[in-house]
Amino acid sequence: MSYTCANALVLQSGGPTAVINQTLAGILTSAKSHPKRIKSVFGAFHGLHGLLYENLLNLGAVSAQVLQGLAHTPGAALGSARLKPKSEDLDRVFEVFREHNIRYVFYIGGNDSAEAAQLIRSEANLRNHDLHILHVPKTIDNDLMETDHCPGYGSVARVAAHVLLGDDLDNRSFYNGVKINICMGRHAGWIAAASALARRCVENEEPETCGPHLIYVPERDFHEDQFLSDIQNTYDRLGRATVVVAEGIADQLKNSRFAGEKDEFGNAQLSGSGKLGDFLARLVEKNIQVRQHLGKLRVRSDTWGYLQRSLPGIVSETDSREAFEVGAAAVEYMMNGETDKTVVIRRISNSPYTSMPDLADLAAVAQKTKKVPSHMLNAAGNGVTNAFFDYVLPLAGDLPKAYSLGAVEKIDKRLGEYLRFQ
Amino acid sequence: MSYTCANALVLQSGGPTAVINQTLAGILTSAKSHPKRIKSVFGAFHGLHGLLYENLLNLGAVSAQVLQGLAHTPGAALGSARLKPKSEDLDRVFEVFREHNIRYVFYIGGNDSAEAAQLIRSEANLRNHDLHILHVPKTIDNDLMETDHCPGYGSVARVAAHVLLGDDLDNRSFYNGVKINICMGRHAGWIAAASALARRCVENEEPETCGPHLIYVPERDFHEDQFLSDIQNTYDRLGRATVVVAEGIADQLKNSRFAGEKDEFGNAQLSGSGKLGDFLARLVEKNIQVRQHLGKLRVRSDTWGYLQRSLPGIVSETDSREAFEVGAAAVEYMMNGETDKTVVIRRISNSPYTSMPDLADLAAVAQKTKKVPSHMLNAAGNGVTNAFFDYVLPLAGDLPKAYSLGAVEKIDKRLGEYLRFQ
Repeated sequence: MSYTCANALVLQSGGPTAVINQTLAGILTSAKSHPKRIKSVFGAFHGLHGLLYENLLNLGAVSAQVLQGLAHTPGAALGSARLKPKSEDLDRVFEVFREHNIRYVFYIGGNDSAEAAQLIRSEANLRNHDLHILHVPKTIDNDLMETDHCPGYGSVARVAAHVLLGDDLDNRSFYNGVKINICMGRHAGWIAAASALARRCVENEEPETCGPHLIYVPERDFHEDQFLSDIQNTYDRLGRATVVVAEGIADQLKNSRFAGEKDEFGNAQLSGSGKLGDFLARLVEKNIQVRQHLGKLRVRSDTWGYLQRSLPGIVSETDSREAFEVGAAAVEYMMNGETDKTVVIRRISNSPYTSMPDLADLAAVAQKTKKVPSHMLNAAGNGVTNAFFDYVLPLAGDLPKAYSLGAVEKIDKRLGEYLRFQ
Repeated sequence: MSYTCANALVLQSGGPTAVINQTLAGILTSAKSHPKRIKSVFGAFHGLHGLLYENLLNLGAVSAQVLQGLAHTPGAALGSARLKPKSEDLDRVFEVFREHNIRYVFYIGGNDSAEAAQLIRSEANLRNHDLHILHVPKTIDNDLMETDHCPGYGSVARVAAHVLLGDDLDNRSFYNGVKINICMGRHAGWIAAASALARRCVENEEPETCGPHLIYVPERDFHEDQFLSDIQNTYDRLGRATVVVAEGIADQLKNSRFAGEKDEFGNAQLSGSGKLGDFLARLVEKNIQVRQHLGKLRVRSDTWGYLQRSLPGIVSETDSREAFEVGAAAVEYMMNGETDKTVVIRRISNSPYTSMPDLADLAAVAQKTKKVPSHMLNAAGNGVTNAFFDYVLPLAGDLPKAYSLGAVEKIDKRLGEYLRFQ
């Protein structure tokens, strides 16, 4: 075990979450317990950009009050970036490390950040720079290997439940409504799946009548014909349909109109545009047969966009707590000599829900994607199983409660039929 | 004053809100105090559609527990409709009234519903049908004349504050971010204006640095050149910009690509599509000059769509209470012989905030739109004044609190410049 007294550096990277600053607070809080080892904690202003441009902040000077407020603030307080260290950047990275005596690095991010951490770590070996580096997980996408779930996911799952519940109640306010919701999830359908929580929220109604009635995830093949036939079946059963589609299914559509801007990791920009929703809405409008006397089909689409990942007011307490814990644990692990690892969360039990931090190899996480496993998705490829509910319920926290009118008495008709929409 | 014992009918109409069922609960609760006058309260299933098709529900049979749960449930519990009674519908309307001894009608809705109520009322006079009809206001658009504000608006104002705060924190996580948010508001910019509340949420930062930096409303002329120059100025000052645009400005754009489906009142369908946001994002991408060393411009747009009006979890308590009160007051007014009126809310004082229900003529509300008054909008036509904050603060309730890192110490640079993005 090394007893170097050196500075620590924290980077926030990739898309922010509602609880990413809890992880920062966890690191800063725990670092204070190791004054003989950690001299100062620096923050890289906008991740790798701040490291390269030597824009470093002295986080030790942040007051306890601000730190506590920050912990509950969505968005990356240090500033984030979507940059991959190029080979020509590495000289500069180690110049900065050397000049500022940085030997402890905490890289808060997703699988791209794990890859960046790995690149920096390999270079440290070649350069004989005594560097401890740990990746601390963060991503609403919940697509990191090795960990049971990712900090950030519980809150977006909670948002998905609320948004979809509200949206389904809105949709059922009208006849003939087909509502398509596009949520984030490029390679994995974890967020789309979490919207299924809304089906458990209406207290006096069968979950089968509540939306989302159909959920499409990138883990399954997307066929336009099957999509339309699923919606027609739901419409025939309920007179309406609320549908959730993970944005990643755009990759499966034959035309390339959804291919947008790409970042340095080669990821397409799918959010911040309503194109996929508009496309699917037009498809439905053209193909679904309605009951004439109820008027024409009412098809709408909403793309949740950035709202879903940084929404204050609908944050999971479990997520918030665990996000702090992985940060605090990362410092303890590093002070015990650990490096080249990622912090993970192990689920111990579901009832009561308990979890603990643990470590996994960086190589097992970098550039890899954890998809929703098969047993959590239904056979038809348009919904989730109870195994998924068992998984997600403790992460999202208590569900919002809603009521429908229920089985209210209908007044007997005394007049003949009226045919307005013929 | 008539002492007829007859049945009452409640209709919910137009777009639902987070608190529209509070108004229904208010009506049902108050109606129970008048058993000698109100025999039963019926609900029209899907508004005018239910009335025409004789789909009536016996709301007296709804249990107290369900009613209390319903009151807190977004979306129109009775079902809504966007239908205008045609002249050939009126025979049927009065047949249903006669057959079911309906002489008290509560029409919960916006200005279109006020018009529908007016049409039915005029016909009642011609037919000598003893009918009392009151319009009970509901609309997130807040665009009804005579009332200080509309039930439903306080909650959407609260949602706008939360969503924009989260979005601005998300946007500032990256360099060079221009984020465009499209919110509802066809003829009036009340919701867009309410997003300004987010500027008051970051505890340790000047409101001027917090988004939304620019707000565009239909009350002001929209010029693409001015829009771009406003964004360039904001970018030059802060290195980023968070913008809110009311969907109604689409009507001012020269091309007709935003003209969509129209309902029976002739209103265009502007929501449920990302077209306007995509159009404005492309405009910005092509025209804004960025600081080269920070990388390329990052332009995104989100259209809040239906999520903003029916979101559980972020509801204003004041709005919730007032929505109940207007319903309860409507019954009392009608039992005092009132008809052909709309219930309004009078603001008595701001601190402490107090209000009371009152009445106004139906004719003063039907088909009219209350725009954001000039003194609540800034001279540049891209923001709000303090007068608007005074107006909206009590309606939205306590604001979410966030923190930024604040004036944290920067570590002195020891290395030469690094130029990655040249």
